[in-house]
Amino acid sequence: MAPPPIKHKALLNVDLGEGYGNYVCGPDLELLPLIDHANVACGFHAGDPLIMQETVRNCKKHNIKVGAHPGLPDIQGFGRREIKMSPEELTAITVYQVGALKGFLDQEGVPLHHVKPHGILYGMMCRDYEIAKAVMEGIPKGVPVFGLAGTNMEKAANDLGIPFWAEMYGDVKYSNDGMLVIDRKKKPWNLEDVRKHVSQQLNSQSVTATDGSVVQLPVKDYPISICCHSDSPGCLGIIRTTKEVIDEFNKEHGRI
Amino acid sequence: MAPPPIKHKALLNVDLGEGYGNYVCGPDLELLPLIDHANVACGFHAGDPLIMQETVRNCKKHNIKVGAHPGLPDIQGFGRREIKMSPEELTAITVYQVGALKGFLDQEGVPLHHVKPHGILYGMMCRDYEIAKAVMEGIPKGVPVFGLAGTNMEKAANDLGIPFWAEMYGDVKYSNDGMLVIDRKKKPWNLEDVRKHVSQQLNSQSVTATDGSVVQLPVKDYPISICCHSDSPGCLGIIRTTKEVIDEFNKEHGRI
Amino acid sequence: MAPPPIKHKALLNVDLGEGYGNYVCGPDLELLPLIDHANVACGFHAGDPLIMQETVRNCKKHNIKVGAHPGLPDIQGFGRREIKMSPEELTAITVYQVGALKGFLDQEGVPLHHVKPHGILYGMMCRDYEIAKAVMEGIPKGVPVFGLAGTNMEKAANDLGIPFWAEMYGDVKYSNDGMLVIDRKKKPWNLEDVRKHVSQQLNSQSVTATDGSVVQLPVKDYPISICCHSDSPGCLGIIRTTKEVIDEFNKEHGRI
Amino acid sequence: MAPPPIKHKALLNVDLGEGYGNYVCGPDLELLPLIDHANVACGFHAGDPLIMQETVRNCKKHNIKVGAHPGLPDIQGFGRREIKMSPEELTAITVYQVGALKGFLDQEGVPLHHVKPHGILYGMMCRDYEIAKAVMEGIPKGVPVFGLAGTNMEKAANDLGIPFWAEMYGDVKYSNDGMLVIDRKKKPWNLEDVRKHVSQQLNSQSVTATDGSVVQLPVKDYPISICCHSDSPGCLGIIRTTKEVIDEFNKEHGRI
Repeated sequence: MAPPPIKHKALLNVDLGEGYGNYVCGPDLELLPLIDHANVACGFHAGDPLIMQETVRNCKKHNIKVGAHPGLPDIQGFGRREIKMSPEELTAITVYQVGALKGFLDQEGVPLHHVKPHGILYGMMCRDYEIAKAVMEGIPKGVPVFGLAGTNMEKAANDLGIPFWAEMYGDVKYSNDGMLVIDRKKKPWNLEDVRKHVSQQLNSQSVTATDGSVVQLPVKDYPISICCHSDSPGCLGIIRTTKEVIDEFNKEHGRI
Repeated sequence: MAPPPIKHKALLNVDLGEGYGNYVCGPDLELLPLIDHANVACGFHAGDPLIMQETVRNCKKHNIKVGAHPGLPDIQGFGRREIKMSPEELTAITVYQVGALKGFLDQEGVPLHHVKPHGILYGMMCRDYEIAKAVMEGIPKGVPVFGLAGTNMEKAANDLGIPFWAEMYGDVKYSNDGMLVIDRKKKPWNLEDVRKHVSQQLNSQSVTATDGSVVQLPVKDYPISICCHSDSPGCLGIIRTTKEVIDEFNKEHGRI
Repeated sequence: MAPPPIKHKALLNVDLGEGYGNYVCGPDLELLPLIDHANVACGFHAGDPLIMQETVRNCKKHNIKVGAHPGLPDIQGFGRREIKMSPEELTAITVYQVGALKGFLDQEGVPLHHVKPHGILYGMMCRDYEIAKAVMEGIPKGVPVFGLAGTNMEKAANDLGIPFWAEMYGDVKYSNDGMLVIDRKKKPWNLEDVRKHVSQQLNSQSVTATDGSVVQLPVKDYPISICCHSDSPGCLGIIRTTKEVIDEFNKEHGRI
Repeated sequence: MAPPPIKHKALLNVDLGEGYGNYVCGPDLELLPLIDHANVACGFHAGDPLIMQETVRNCKKHNIKVGAHPGLPDIQGFGRREIKMSPEELTAITVYQVGALKGFLDQEGVPLHHVKPHGILYGMMCRDYEIAKAVMEGIPKGVPVFGLAGTNMEKAANDLGIPFWAEMYGDVKYSNDGMLVIDRKKKPWNLEDVRKHVSQQLNSQSVTATDGSVVQLPVKDYPISICCHSDSPGCLGIIRTTKEVIDEFNKEHGRI
């Protein structure tokens, strides 16, 4: 028997502010009306002070909850090249980046809603408990972390008393162990596949993995946010489709 | 008639945490017992997350008030090469750096005592009102700025309602317009000259400039902190001597 | 009486390889069939080793002459923020960047055709003889420099015995002193205006400046390359139009 | 029976130019009279254009052979944090850095003598054949590589037809598999231990590993250079001692 639908309202998060200087990443302005949570890049893997300032102001205007999106210190690799760092360093780069974003939030009177680690750092935290713990020790008290349920992210958050939000993914595939399959260059999605991918996760807490097997993704009682990426090819279509599925799901289940 | 001595207790500030990765800057650990205020580098001209974390902890142990020391984004030039940035960028780099330091202070439960801009940025603020204003717009409400009285730093702070502390300099000479003479490579000081230099400033709000003329440095009612640098050649001797002069001055005038 | 047309075949140069990591700048692959000279970014204002390697290989395939495109060390500002550097530093950053590009050229057996400084560095060289000289002292012996005739670039090249190519601009306006008007954010062009702008320069060595006056741009006997930018809005249209004007001009004047 | 002494003259190499901006690393000027080969940092893990220029000029004055010392792109980690990069990237960062150094050598008319990879990159090459091969594919034709005999560095060099120099280490210990033991913070050496450590390697192609076992380090017919580091605590003493042992060895065996 398939697991039941998720218990909470489905929400939508996207990484924003991932440009750098003159370089543009995603169509941030077009995404603002569509999303509930923004993960704002903090200058280590993407973003810079001007972009962060503007992104926080845009989120405020659109009433979007803002989270910090810290990454490994590697703009050239967009935070997607693994770097071996000590636990102390991982804690310190988290404190630094979250603090920097909080500077902009404080200026605008906007609270810090959550922290979502970026890219390969997120993957390293899923796989390695010590890394998950080190990063989370840099999160200010009481601020939730977004992560993948069933991995070391969930476990470290629980051990440290950090509120946990479970993520599901609209535009990333899973391997048969429930881990995300990260491609350096993202592949385009068929929108009908996006629809099925998101719907399956919301309605049965499971996903069809890249090998065709169905993997359970039990999210327990955690609040849920579905993640899509603004640098995927065709991201606007993917995000609009994901939002449609989410809206239908929430309506059907009376989640307001 | 010479102006009177300064009205407040003389205090001592030094820049700390100006190493980078494996690179060491000053003898921070030896300076901790000597100073009242630390200006902690925030990663743009010097410092990195690990160094900031350690420096904040060391300051806490020694009961030193901690200020943010934001600089231009230029580690290779140690924040001493002028970069033309827009006012928006100057505000944003200040918010970012002060926020990052505040991240570490919040973790340790230490309040942010002040903001002191670094190097050429400090000099640009003294000379250019728009630059002074842009940087100060990035300072959190109510936090004082350290600067040079009689320059655009004082004026901008007053216009923006930012509390102002007047600095005097133990190891930097002045030109006859009351501005600091910044050498790219710092020259050694004779300790007897340091003694006279500091004493003259404290006791008569004036200084003998590089051309031999005596220039007034009126500091009004502002609280005072004397600045020495941890990367000057022979800095430990300079700082110990400055502290002696300060201690004598405070004792003589009953400033506890 | 208007000055005569330029004496040499008109050629077309474009900056290539100005992406960074995952960030894309211009439509490089579409530009390759259209141009004669590529100015390849060297990693200081844009470009990175992987991009340089790929760009050099692409230029080789398309038989495009490759020049180095050194800039100020400032990826975040895309080499468009002025940084004050000593003459020794300017020479050294030129040697470094040109050498790095030459590494890739040597691997592919492609000669270094020219050096064209980027962005604000180019502008600083036009205005300041010492800066022009310092940068040019970093160019390998015998390699030509691309620059603006009638400015300190021409003068310094001549003084140092460096072969000089005069540039004209397809997508940049001039002020009434013959200097380029650099906008931080580039404005779109009407293609008919591009046609007139290029044609006027080729056919009468002059240009209608932003204030409406006609300014002479005498290019003497120097070989000529017309520059267009790959990061201008609508750059493909601009470059195709410029190429049409150039081709017509060369055909009309029998320049093969 | 212990293996025989090495067959070639023993020579001495040191990394130079590993400062960054105002930050100083080793006592380069004092080392110049003592060494045969300099490995000059190329700006990725340490060094910058000004420092490279000055270091190359100093080496020329002292008749020291100059090699390139490319590292991972990580000044904050001093090239000692492992970063996962693709083979193409590893080749490209090598081409870039060696080319940049060659720019300065060409200016001074000094030939490129060798390439010696830095820090963790060297260690990754010893352990991983694909990494060793990728880096070496970025070395200009005919230029030798310095590396550790008996590892993938030797094998890749041979496979690619790159001349190989075997290194021995004056200030680094070995584990019982013949690999180097790299400490993030280097520990001080007793000079008598340095003497024995070097002498054992030169006279019997073997070393006493950290576990007390004697490990053979067969260097075959390769030319030999002994490496010491300029950032070890007490490096001047270590390097002078190593040079004494080398000079005695060469004298005793008539190697001029």
